[in-house]
Order: sequence, then C-alpha cells, then structure tokens
Amino acid sequence: MSDGKAGLQLRSLIKKSGELEISLANVPTPEPSADEVVVRVEASPINPSDLGLLVGAADMATAKASGTKDAPIVTASVPEAAMRAMAGRLDESMPVGNEGAGVVIRTGSSEAAKALMGKTVAMIGGAMYAQYRTIRASDCLVLPDGTTPAEGASCFVNPLTSLGMVETMRREGHKALVHTAAASNLGQMLNKICLKDGVPLVNIVRSPEQAQILRKIGAKYVVDSTSPAFMDDLTNALVETGATLAFDAIGGGKLAGQILTCMEAAINKTAKAYSRYGSNVHKQVYIYGGLDLRPTEFNRAFGMTWGIGGWLLFPFLQKIGMADALKLRQRVVAELKTTFASHYTQVVSLQEALQLSHIAVYAKRATGEKYLINPNKA
Amino acid sequence: MSDGKAGLQLRSLIKKSGELEISLANVPTPEPSADEVVVRVEASPINPSDLGLLVGAADMATAKASGTKDAPIVTASVPEAAMRAMAGRLDESMPVGNEGAGVVIRTGSSEAAKALMGKTVAMIGGAMYAQYRTIRASDCLVLPDGTTPAEGASCFVNPLTSLGMVETMRREGHKALVHTAAASNLGQMLNKICLKDGVPLVNIVRSPEQAQILRKIGAKYVVDSTSPAFMDDLTNALVETGATLAFDAIGGGKLAGQILTCMEAAINKTAKAYSRYGSNVHKQVYIYGGLDLRPTEFNRAFGMTWGIGGWLLFPFLQKIGMADALKLRQRVVAELKTTFASHYTQVVSLQEALQLSHIAVYAKRATGEKYLINPNKA
Repeated sequence: MSDGKAGLQLRSLIKKSGELEISLANVPTPEPSADEVVVRVEASPINPSDLGLLVGAADMATAKASGTKDAPIVTASVPEAAMRAMAGRLDESMPVGNEGAGVVIRTGSSEAAKALMGKTVAMIGGAMYAQYRTIRASDCLVLPDGTTPAEGASCFVNPLTSLGMVETMRREGHKALVHTAAASNLGQMLNKICLKDGVPLVNIVRSPEQAQILRKIGAKYVVDSTSPAFMDDLTNALVETGATLAFDAIGGGKLAGQILTCMEAAINKTAKAYSRYGSNVHKQVYIYGGLDLRPTEFNRAFGMTWGIGGWLLFPFLQKIGMADALKLRQRVVAELKTTFASHYTQVVSLQEALQLSHIAVYAKRATGEKYLINPNKA
Repeated sequence: MSDGKAGLQLRSLIKKSGELEISLANVPTPEPSADEVVVRVEASPINPSDLGLLVGAADMATAKASGTKDAPIVTASVPEAAMRAMAGRLDESMPVGNEGAGVVIRTGSSEAAKALMGKTVAMIGGAMYAQYRTIRASDCLVLPDGTTPAEGASCFVNPLTSLGMVETMRREGHKALVHTAAASNLGQMLNKICLKDGVPLVNIVRSPEQAQILRKIGAKYVVDSTSPAFMDDLTNALVETGATLAFDAIGGGKLAGQILTCMEAAINKTAKAYSRYGSNVHKQVYIYGGLDLRPTEFNRAFGMTWGIGGWLLFPFLQKIGMADALKLRQRVVAELKTTFASHYTQVVSLQEALQLSHIAVYAKRATGEKYLINPNKA
C-alpha cells in the first residue's frame, strides 16, 4: 500500500440496534482532481471534539474487542435514551478525525496543487484517521521548513478555538475571560495568548495539580472548583478582572450557573442600589464542550441579564468572514512552536487506537492526557 | 387621609436575620414638583414580576400573621441558601407594585401636570401598592374616557411584554413563537396579538383545562406538557410552524431544554446530511419568569447552535428606543378593551392583600388566578 492507492481508514458506525462498532476499513484513495492533492497522514490528534463522532453516545464501559490484531473491531452499546440524538447517523459508517498533518505524495494537474508536492501540510476537514487523505490544495496549510507533521497536527481546532475566544470577547464588548478545564492543551494555549495580548484570564481547574501546571506557565488567576472556597475565590478573581464572559468546556453539572452567580455577585459588590431584577450588565457563558456529560443545571440566582449558549469554531469563523479568519490562521503558523505548541502523552497507530486499554484512557477526556494517531506508524 | 397628604403604603423588608416582614406603613405623600402629579391609586395588579420583590426568596409555607386588622404584619423565613441573592436589599424597607392606575387629585404647576387634573391615568414605576403615588406627569398614560382604573391597571407589564415578544421575534429573524404557561393572562394577550398579526404561536400549557381556555379564544397550536405525547406533539407543532424562538415563564425544571430538543428534532426532520454538531439553525429560549423556582436543567441534546437567556421588558424597551417603544404603548391604549383586556379573580384592599389565605393563593403564581389590589377600597 506504499503507493498510496489504497489505505486503512478508521470508521465509526452506530447501528439501529443500538450498537456502536469502530473498525478499520481498507479503502481506495480517491484520485486527486486538478485542484486536489493526496496526503500521507502522519499525525492526527484525538480532540474532545472528535470523540463525539468516534464513540457517539455509546457507553464505553460496555466496550468489547474482537477482530484480529491487524483488523481490530470494538463494539459497545448505546443507551436507549441516547439513541434519539443519534438518529441522523444510524447505519452509516463514518470516517473520523477533524484535523491532521502529513506529506503530499501525489497532486492534481493545477499549479497550486503541483506546488505542494513533497511539502509537509496541515489539514482540516474530517476523515484524518486514515493513511491517505485526498483534499483540496486550498484546504492545506503549508508548514514552515523544519516543522514535523506531529508539530503541525493540531494547527486548527485548539489554536483557532482559543484565538476565537479572545476574538469573541473583543467583538461582544467584554474585557476579560473565564475558562474552564483550564489546564487542558487548549487552556494552556489560551493562557499564552492572553499573557501575550494582556487579556486578564480567570482559569478554573479541578485539582491542585492542574492549578500548578497553569501557575508554572505564568497564569495569574487560577481557582479550583473542588476547593470549599471556590465560590469566594472565583468572585474575588471576577472583581479583580471584571470578566463577564466565560467559555466552558465542561458543559454538564452546576459550573456554568456558578460562574454566572459569581459574576453577578462580583458586579453587585460595586453596585449602588438594589435592583430586584439583578444587575443590568450582560453576563454570558458559552458552552463549547461536554467533558461532563450530565445535564447542565443552574438556579438562576444571577438576575435577568444573562445568556448561556453553544459556541462552535466553524460558525464563528463563518461569522467573522474569510479575511479575519485568515489573519487568525497566519498567527497560528507564526507561533506554532511557541504559543500554539501541543504536547501528546501517547502516539498510537490506527490499530493501537482501537485497543481497549487506550480507549479507556482517551475516552475519559481527562485533562493532561492527549493522544496523537499516526496512521502510518510502522 | 382623604386629602391625600398621607396614606398607607405596602412595605417588604428582609432582615439580616433571614426574616421577611410585610407590613403597611403610613407615609406622607411627597408634594408634587412642577412636573409631577399625585394619583389616588385605585387598581394595581399582583403580577408574577411583583412577587419577587414582595416575598423575595422567603418560604411562604412558614408565613405567620400578626399585628392588627388595620395594620396587619406577615412574617416568614428566608432559607439560608437563598440569602446570598437577597444581599442587596437586606434591612431596607421596600415599597412594591410595578404598575397601577388611578385618578389625579393634585398637580404641580407646569401646564403638562395641570392638564392631568381629575384624569384617570395608568402608571408604571414601582410603589403602586399605596393609597397615593406622586409621579412625573410624563410617566402617566391618560386613559380614554370611559375607562376605569381597574381596566387600565395592567396597561404596561403584560401588554408590553407580549408585544415585546413578537417584536423580538421579528428583530432576531425568527418567524414563529413558542410560549409557556400559555393560558396565563399574558399568554392570552399573546394569542390575541398573534392571531391579529398572523404570527404562528405554539402554546405550551400544563393541563387539559388550560388547553381548553386557549382553544376557546382561537389558539391553533396547543400542547400539554403533562401529556405522555408531549415531546412528539411539540415537535409536530414546531415542524408546522417553524418556530425557533420560545419565551418561557416557567424557568425551572426541564421545559426550556425540552423545547430546544424538540426544535432541533423538528429542524432535523428536513435536514439532508448528518452533522455531528447538530443543525446550524439558531434556537433560542428566553426565560422571562420563574413560575417554577427549581433549578433549570437541560441535557444539551440539541447541537451547538442554541441559546438560553434572561429576557426583561425594561432593557428591551431601552434597546428598541423611545420612538418604537411609544408605538407599542399607543397600540396598547387603542386595544385596551379588546386585545389587552385583563381579567381578575379577586379585588382586595391593602389589608386583605396581607391575609394569609389570600397570600396562599397569589403566591402560588397559578395560571388563572389573578389579583388586583385597590389601595383605596372602602
């Protein structure tokens, strides 16, 4: 298969019967059209945003392995209550992997495509958990000389998401940020951006160890949601920073509501008169992840001027338009080995990615555990 | 006191000790300045939006009566967990009553003020649960001849709120509405507006009796949240109407999330391809009330393009500006006895409003029970 005419591709399938099946399919590589290239994928991260498609709503505690070492199969059951949300993808075998990087090994006939021959490129567009990916030349980001595919594998999702948060803050008229699961790869990037740009950032973590990670890279405001003093600590940090916008990767549980409650308390510390409806300062939490799959719960103890909503990178990029999106992308390339450097705890092959022992680790979505798939790992 | 130089005023006080005290104070009526008038208040509704200030976060199951028949006092305890939200009003005796109507009995020296002498006017601005209210002439809405204070008592909150919902729908690019607690006084108004303006409206009620009330006034889409078929019924109504904006008076429990879930299901019924992030149609629920005081809970089974937020009349009116707000107000006066007619189940004096038997009814915030206070009831 070294000619790249065909290769392995990871597939996720949820059957009408309620069974998830993850497997490797041997698929022919589509021939590149004039404007396309074929990339040998050498690095693709497992982001939390990939897990939604990879394991769907399946209960991975029920996961079972079958198949062979070269063609492993993992099955697990999807709880009946969760099947409604899966309706759109039933019985459809889906490729996975939002972003990745690799080397261009074949090109279409256009000048733009031919110019990429042999280059190391970063890509976004799905189906990256595969040995080969045919993609439009314009969807490739050429990495600077001396950059490895592993270094460029996470060029899009985390860097653009963290830049998008700061950009959203500016566009919606806030002056500081709150971020949860803040010791994550993305959270560390966000700290580096905010330190560089002078944006006050309140980091919420879930352990003293995570707080330590952030303090080491220079974070000024770090509060631990497992501390008994959490609400007071958070309120104090909000008084100091004036943050009225939060990005929440947790989603489930009470955290989003606690943030709004503390924002309101911080605002009222300087309020002059009582208003039965609370302050009229807009407080916003955007939920962009679902590390905690439980329901979101809040008690509305924060007046009437608030919002909670979903936030997603692609609609955001569309909203700001091509020119501004390109500026963000250029910043990522310029600071790829500093601000936007990613760290991985494991590099696995496609087959290894289907081992239950690995799934047990990466499906936990634990902060500090970050997997990279190398589909062409020997 | 018939000269209006002093009169009774209802007061709500929450003490640092955690005790709510509602009482009647005899207060001097402020002399009107040049641009002000004194109104003898004859009708003021108890809206859900008044209860927040009147009883605060107190547990009214603990309410006790004391004082005398003419000067009754009601006390109740505020659960400790709720005291944080009360911080801004502690140990401050507060007047209550957002809106009301009455007759102008004395005026300042300006022409505008003098022109109101003897007129029946509607007012907004708080402290209406009182025998006399000194207020700026420009904050009075002169009612057409033949309109009683009782007919004009609810000129502002419910009429402008329901008009504000339709206006918000138009301004935010939606084409139909969902409303909860839909058989309420406000909900019936909203139905009349929507029928008149040709706006599809999905009414969510909590009993077959409430459904019946709305069908009788011509509502086309009525779904009952206590029915086992609720989710399917709601989804079908959303497919037919295309509603992607809801106004929710309930606030607590799972309803807001269920509405978003059904909106997403309705949108996906016509979707062409599976998107792991759900549809990219923005779905919005505005919570404008808190009939259910429990926490709000939702499971985020509706993609990433959604929002839940607070909605309040006054910030909305400020946002649309004076000229547009005036247009809404003019429509209210023009249709006061038709579209915007209110119905009350009880008319009580200030003393009667403090009887535990009445409090037990109006503090329930039950649909169909609507109290009017006449502070000058003989």
